Amino acid sequence: MFRPQIKVLDCTVRDGGLINQWQFNDDFVRKVFIALSQAGVDYMEIGYKSSEKYFSRNENGAWKFCSEDDLKRIVGGFEKTMKLSAMADIGRIDYEDIPKKSESVIDMIRVASYVKEVDKAISLAHHCMEKGYETTINLMAVSKVLEKDLDDALEDLAKSNVPVIYLVDSFGAMYSEQVHYLAKKYFAALPGKELGIHTHNNQQLAFSNTIDGIIAGINRLDATIYGMGRGAGNCPLELLLSFLKNPKFDIRPVIEIIQEIFIPMKAKVEWGYHIPYMITGILNEHPRSGMKIMSAKKLPDLRQYYEDLRDGTPLE
Amino acid sequence: MFRPQIKVLDCTVRDGGLINQWQFNDDFVRKVFIALSQAGVDYMEIGYKSSEKYFSRNENGAWKFCSEDDLKRIVGGFEKTMKLSAMADIGRIDYEDIPKKSESVIDMIRVASYVKEVDKAISLAHHCMEKGYETTINLMAVSKVLEKDLDDALEDLAKSNVPVIYLVDSFGAMYSEQVHYLAKKYFAALPGKELGIHTHNNQQLAFSNTIDGIIAGINRLDATIYGMGRGAGNCPLELLLSFLKNPKFDIRPVIEIIQEIFIPMKAKVEWGYHIPYMITGILNEHPRSGMKIMSAKKLPDLRQYYEDLRDGTPLE
Repeated sequence: MFRPQIKVLDCTVRDGGLINQWQFNDDFVRKVFIALSQAGVDYMEIGYKSSEKYFSRNENGAWKFCSEDDLKRIVGGFEKTMKLSAMADIGRIDYEDIPKKSESVIDMIRVASYVKEVDKAISLAHHCMEKGYETTINLMAVSKVLEKDLDDALEDLAKSNVPVIYLVDSFGAMYSEQVHYLAKKYFAALPGKELGIHTHNNQQLAFSNTIDGIIAGINRLDATIYGMGRGAGNCPLELLLSFLKNPKFDIRPVIEIIQEIFIPMKAKVEWGYHIPYMITGILNEHPRSGMKIMSAKKLPDLRQYYEDLRDGTPLE
Repeated sequence: MFRPQIKVLDCTVRDGGLINQWQFNDDFVRKVFIALSQAGVDYMEIGYKSSEKYFSRNENGAWKFCSEDDLKRIVGGFEKTMKLSAMADIGRIDYEDIPKKSESVIDMIRVASYVKEVDKAISLAHHCMEKGYETTINLMAVSKVLEKDLDDALEDLAKSNVPVIYLVDSFGAMYSEQVHYLAKKYFAALPGKELGIHTHNNQQLAFSNTIDGIIAGINRLDATIYGMGRGAGNCPLELLLSFLKNPKFDIRPVIEIIQEIFIPMKAKVEWGYHIPYMITGILNEHPRSGMKIMSAKKLPDLRQYYEDLRDGTPLE
């Protein structure tokens, strides 16, 4: 039996864009949009909502900004059966740059926040709710935070009006034990709210940790096509849809677009399980040093890299 | 706290050899042997014990046979801190071709068996025990067997003297739920025996299912370096050693050999997560059709392949 409350959000363009600064052409984004719609996915997160004051269009593709013009160029002409989401980072968007929901094709804004910024996140999320959007807060990097600080943040979130809070394994460092521990903590601290989960694949646990989230009662699930995403990538959508038994999901359009676009793309753009990302994952570190290594022409001595990162030797 | 009863067996050469008919040169096998010894791995499964009557040395490398001469060429001159294992398939080895333990550098023989052949497996395993070897039976392909037949096989195994029985996910089709269900069944049916687990990575669950096996009480764990193995491969040793907290394990020699040998090798030999293997995994099918596809120059229409396999359309 499937759980009808479960909603799948695909963030291929948003998280995958962290690899190439969202330099996707329209044809790619439109094909992803169509494939996800046909697959029965509930939400497509198409990019970040950022202000052009802070980021240049020369360096960043359209999906760093998600302007209404860009969005309409993609979804125009299609019957919209799937909701669209955009992510907002605190300090990278000004309130006045967010249009009213009635003037936007975006349905949901997810606010990404570190634990220490949760008050700013709540303020931004409340603003988005007032403008008419569905809204969530995604609490990042919680595997490296003092538990007391996390508990305080959850207390603030409990008092907020934000209805959905995400458990995020930013570093791909969690095992099933941590997922269950944190899900239990979040549910206890956030009565009446719904939980989501967003995982990274540094230890090949993005999919299994998402399943553990489901077992723990989490209903909002993030995934990306072929696992595409920053560093080791995310929970692969094709695996998740196959696991979920809801007959509304159809894996075939996802297989098709993987073959047409993502297999050739993966031969050029490196994401997925690689030893530098595994090392940041097992050491519970931000993947940035791993990404730096992976972007170099030649790998450095990986044993040395592991020892340095483990021992806290500065890399630069 | 770590569980001192846990023993890790690396089957890189044995399972990886299924990709290239064990055409590994001595330098490769010796480097694997040294890296595993340094890493503190408990057992290295170095190949199959097969009779030369049934297989040709022209088509198969030395590790299809594990002759004492070949073995001594590898391990000779080293202090042996790690046990060696060989796998035996029913009908591919004659009893008289197995030397006495006192005449062999092999410590353990693992008998691989389908459920329907369990009586033959028990007979071969008893023979190996009489010759002085540690012995296990690895019950394959149990995700496709009638539960009544599995229960009968477990009853036979319970009456045998074989001390260790493996739960094997041959098709990479199991989720954590199936691992826990079967582990509970095996423990209940096999009082006094120890359990092992051997997983495949078709759905990126080889590592997480091994962790679930540990949670369920399983102490014998299979893994391979960089996940190398037939089709989608196995539980990656580097991830497993990092998860286990036993201070005797050292991940660094594994990272080193991955960089020296396995990263370059993976650029030429295809193992790991690929859509054809994912499809056989989610459909609970033998990976052979996926392997056939992957060995072709050009992938066929994967959506069509999925539909055909799902609908039982013969492929050849």
